[in-house]
Amino acid sequence: MFGWAGSILEVNLTSGKIFKRRLEPEFARKWLGGEGFGAKVLWDEVGPEVEDGLDPRNVLIYAAGPLTGTMAPSSGRFEIITKSPLTGIFGDSNAGGFFAPELKSAGYDMLIIRGRAEKPVWLWIENGRVEVRDASRLWGKTVSETDAAIKQELGDRDIQVSCIGPAGENLVRFAILVNNLVRAPGWTGCGAVAGSKNLKAVAVRGTKGVNIARPDEFENACREARKKVRGVRLFETRRKLGTMYLFRMFYTMGHSVLNNYNITQCPPDHFENICGEKWAEDYIVRQTSCYGCEVQCGHYATVKDGPYAGLSGDGFEYGTFGAYCQWYGSSNLAFAMAAVKYCNDNGMDGTEPGMLLAWATDCYKRGIFNKEDTDGLELDWGNEKAALEILMKINHREGLGNLLAEGVARAARATGKGSEYFAQTQKGRSCFEANVRTSYGCASGSMFSTRGGDHLKGFPYWEFSAPPEEASRWKWGNPKTGDYRTGEGKAPMTVYGQNIFTLIDMLGTCKFHTRLALDGLDEADYARLVALATGIDFTVLELMTIAERVYNLEQAFNNSLGISRKDDRLPDMYYDVPLNGGPLDKKTIMKREEVEKMIDDYYALRGWDLKTGVPPRKTLERLGLEDVAEDLERRGVLPR
Amino acid sequence: MFGWAGSILEVNLTSGKIFKRRLEPEFARKWLGGEGFGAKVLWDEVGPEVEDGLDPRNVLIYAAGPLTGTMAPSSGRFEIITKSPLTGIFGDSNAGGFFAPELKSAGYDMLIIRGRAEKPVWLWIENGRVEVRDASRLWGKTVSETDAAIKQELGDRDIQVSCIGPAGENLVRFAILVNNLVRAPGWTGCGAVAGSKNLKAVAVRGTKGVNIARPDEFENACREARKKVRGVRLFETRRKLGTMYLFRMFYTMGHSVLNNYNITQCPPDHFENICGEKWAEDYIVRQTSCYGCEVQCGHYATVKDGPYAGLSGDGFEYGTFGAYCQWYGSSNLAFAMAAVKYCNDNGMDGTEPGMLLAWATDCYKRGIFNKEDTDGLELDWGNEKAALEILMKINHREGLGNLLAEGVARAARATGKGSEYFAQTQKGRSCFEANVRTSYGCASGSMFSTRGGDHLKGFPYWEFSAPPEEASRWKWGNPKTGDYRTGEGKAPMTVYGQNIFTLIDMLGTCKFHTRLALDGLDEADYARLVALATGIDFTVLELMTIAERVYNLEQAFNNSLGISRKDDRLPDMYYDVPLNGGPLDKKTIMKREEVEKMIDDYYALRGWDLKTGVPPRKTLERLGLEDVAEDLERRGVLPR
Repeated sequence: MFGWAGSILEVNLTSGKIFKRRLEPEFARKWLGGEGFGAKVLWDEVGPEVEDGLDPRNVLIYAAGPLTGTMAPSSGRFEIITKSPLTGIFGDSNAGGFFAPELKSAGYDMLIIRGRAEKPVWLWIENGRVEVRDASRLWGKTVSETDAAIKQELGDRDIQVSCIGPAGENLVRFAILVNNLVRAPGWTGCGAVAGSKNLKAVAVRGTKGVNIARPDEFENACREARKKVRGVRLFETRRKLGTMYLFRMFYTMGHSVLNNYNITQCPPDHFENICGEKWAEDYIVRQTSCYGCEVQCGHYATVKDGPYAGLSGDGFEYGTFGAYCQWYGSSNLAFAMAAVKYCNDNGMDGTEPGMLLAWATDCYKRGIFNKEDTDGLELDWGNEKAALEILMKINHREGLGNLLAEGVARAARATGKGSEYFAQTQKGRSCFEANVRTSYGCASGSMFSTRGGDHLKGFPYWEFSAPPEEASRWKWGNPKTGDYRTGEGKAPMTVYGQNIFTLIDMLGTCKFHTRLALDGLDEADYARLVALATGIDFTVLELMTIAERVYNLEQAFNNSLGISRKDDRLPDMYYDVPLNGGPLDKKTIMKREEVEKMIDDYYALRGWDLKTGVPPRKTLERLGLEDVAEDLERRGVLPR
Repeated sequence: MFGWAGSILEVNLTSGKIFKRRLEPEFARKWLGGEGFGAKVLWDEVGPEVEDGLDPRNVLIYAAGPLTGTMAPSSGRFEIITKSPLTGIFGDSNAGGFFAPELKSAGYDMLIIRGRAEKPVWLWIENGRVEVRDASRLWGKTVSETDAAIKQELGDRDIQVSCIGPAGENLVRFAILVNNLVRAPGWTGCGAVAGSKNLKAVAVRGTKGVNIARPDEFENACREARKKVRGVRLFETRRKLGTMYLFRMFYTMGHSVLNNYNITQCPPDHFENICGEKWAEDYIVRQTSCYGCEVQCGHYATVKDGPYAGLSGDGFEYGTFGAYCQWYGSSNLAFAMAAVKYCNDNGMDGTEPGMLLAWATDCYKRGIFNKEDTDGLELDWGNEKAALEILMKINHREGLGNLLAEGVARAARATGKGSEYFAQTQKGRSCFEANVRTSYGCASGSMFSTRGGDHLKGFPYWEFSAPPEEASRWKWGNPKTGDYRTGEGKAPMTVYGQNIFTLIDMLGTCKFHTRLALDGLDEADYARLVALATGIDFTVLELMTIAERVYNLEQAFNNSLGISRKDDRLPDMYYDVPLNGGPLDKKTIMKREEVEKMIDDYYALRGWDLKTGVPPRKTLERLGLEDVAEDLERRGVLPR
């Protein structure tokens, strides 16, 4: 098959069975790849009876897309889909690097891992040859150690490895699978799922390449797409600072954050220490890149002096730094680098621990936690020693770390005593590190995410990243769309954002090349690329319909678990506590009526039931999801 | 797709998920249908960790073939494949009737049922619409009651129902799924698997028909095949007596059986009461037939006088009658009818209870069981009252019935005290009701069956059913093949029989139309039919290679569970105790050296390892089973 590699690899770790299935063309066209493939398999195979993502009946799915591993710009991406052990709902996450092109070049569009091995194992895929190998020697090793040990064992440095660190082994609920040392599908805890399956790593070597249906035209289209990307307004900024350019953007507009969001705008001196420009000047050594990327937004960085001198690495982002330098209140990027590097190398999400530190410190300062609860540690904003010690405790689930390894939402539920109020989570995941509290657009994207608190499911940043006059060009048809102070006009932006980002996560390319994030490639560009790669005349309409189908399926998956309108919410604190600091209006800006209206608008546009947020039969049928309607009816989620 | 319906229906009873997959053309061509489809899915999904067939992780697979539901003669058949709760190894069984054409006409080649429903359910399939319905009202009902209740509920008498009776609900290990009241995949306990899944019934209504690639030529070929069947030597015999003609054949040659095989030939007066001619004269009322059958070997029969007067029904066979009238020693066909009817309507295999009665009576008479063990019943050969009471006890797992519900092999293992010696089983299933003890050919077919003691996996009856001079025509190349007194020359007949019968069980047609069983259709006839139906130019070689692939896969499945040469055996008693009665040589005829030599020959011809009976990598690779070789290597079943 063109564009697609043509095979699905299935491994049952309980039985040790390994088998391959051909990718069925009808399935491929209906679900496209990546997030679509995974959502469908997860829906089919994992029902509500699998209560915990750590249940061996959960499945762990790696899925590439029809553009993965091609010449399309930034096409090195894949999705991991699983029932999240962090949130208990639909879990997907996307990663770059070089792993996915290798998997696809070995002949596989999707890898489905089921069951639980009796002893630690790793999976070795060399084109058609697949082996489950003993991993006892690798157990306990960090990501970099594991990566090196596998490459050494096989005597091949070009092997691509996706592995867990100790955090995944210890079932830390936000543990990750890391490839290329620092690239990871970081959210929703896929590393804990791998750990629960006793799966240390997946290593892959593929030499088959990817077939393209119309290679000459495709090459041309890729060249043009790359040219377009290089010419966009944000290109140089993204290239130079990566996601770190966001610090200044948010700060300038007053959407900065400090100290578990108790302060809504960080003070100027703090900001100047953590902003992208500071990062570029003091730490960045050189650019790094994922497979086939035009922007190359990664950066290798080094600490030149001070207590962290010599600490070097890659994989630092606004999100992770935001957690330590804003939520946890540190003004020291070098410390944040140390924290993030520890998380990456031990295989845990870099952001959640920062949010945990912020929440725990908030609780400590309010007397909800005392020194007994914190194993004797004195918690304070930006306390570096305590933070690094707590990261280790989380990684090994020791003392306070055992509680925090559950993530903010579960830890707060277990702690009680009012601590929930300061836990800023949505459907089990921490809110985005930026401005959910100060922007209706961001709140909308995060509230309606199918994987819990999130900005990358819908990326409602158009209000920031595009100049207001573009509202009409983008046809939202509502000048209020670009106004962060109102819920009005947010639904079209959110739905469009969710659909286009779902599409990107199906294609196997990077969101940071899109019009939405970079003013880069739009849906017509992608339709052209995927049509030339696959030889199927995909239109924009068909692609966006697939995206809508997948998003609805994810919603249905969550609905079947009891998720409904009550869960599409903001933390209460965002309605109660007035803003402080920064150029924004000091009065509380989140209003319940406005948010409820925003939910109505969003559900109406999605064609979902206003009371429950469940897609009704009519909507599901329009999307070719009759079987999902039947399933929801059987469960009583939809009335018959 | 032509010949194939084109879809696979998958139902997970634990999660309630229902979904459909397109049948992948490559998969279809490699595994053909029926037994092939099921063996592949079972291999892929069920590993040795699923120790008991009653584990919810076992799968229950209904599979039709490319000829099922077409105009090909006797094409109403399907397979049920599952891990057998009776034998603990590969389990498949085939049934006729009208269920399979309906399933295929609803659009499905295969139905895969996974998991376990929380409460009793039944599955309702109406073309594309599939529902899991509440079966609490049906639970406890017999087969005929269930069949009637479902048809009444849906107001459609043409619905096809495959259901369990109380035996399946009570997890009797040889319980069956019955369709058309008396047609059943009777062996290896699929009804207990359904019961363990809380699945009472599958009801199906299909109105789509089956597409044929070259309809005119196919119609012609079917007409010719039917003509050929009608012209064969055994046609009238089969038509008139069904399988009951076998009584006289075996008797005449001295391979009759009596009283748990303690007597190797039944006396003339006993024989005359139970033979096919007696059956035809005193009981048969009219012929009955499965879908599209030329022979119509079924018979509706009635007891005209005596204590069972008025008892009527269908579904009586040599195998079942043999169990009660030979093994259990009754000379009353009316009693056997009562026993078989009770088994059918309560959803248990009709033969195993007869073998259990024979074994239990043998044990009782030898003092291994006393009256306490038998709940006060006096066991004696042919005791009708005790037998019918024990059948009820088995059905409800009461008293002695709870032990016997485990089947002969497990019951003997649990009882000990030497009772195992009189338990005539092979790989967990009772030996065929006829002449395993007196014929090397029959012993060979039964020993090497992948589903335990059996004659229908290999049907090594050529020595009886074809005149000796045909040996050369059939190209066995060894005149000894037709001699039941020697192990020589049995391997080619057994391998051919296994391959051709595996082919038939993949195609969805009836073994009783084949050259092997009826001197009817041969592999060239089938190749022609399947090529015209599917539009794929299947050759005899390709079809026989598929059959070999499937048989090897079944062997590998069993090998991965620890099955090896030690299990390809005969009951010790067959070597020790001399024959008695009948025209055969009175000396013991089974000789260990001869049997061992026969095993060597068979393994050598199969290309299996002589020491273990495991197919080595070379053999597996030749059959396109590289992944199976890898699996066996990983498990240490094959050396790396």
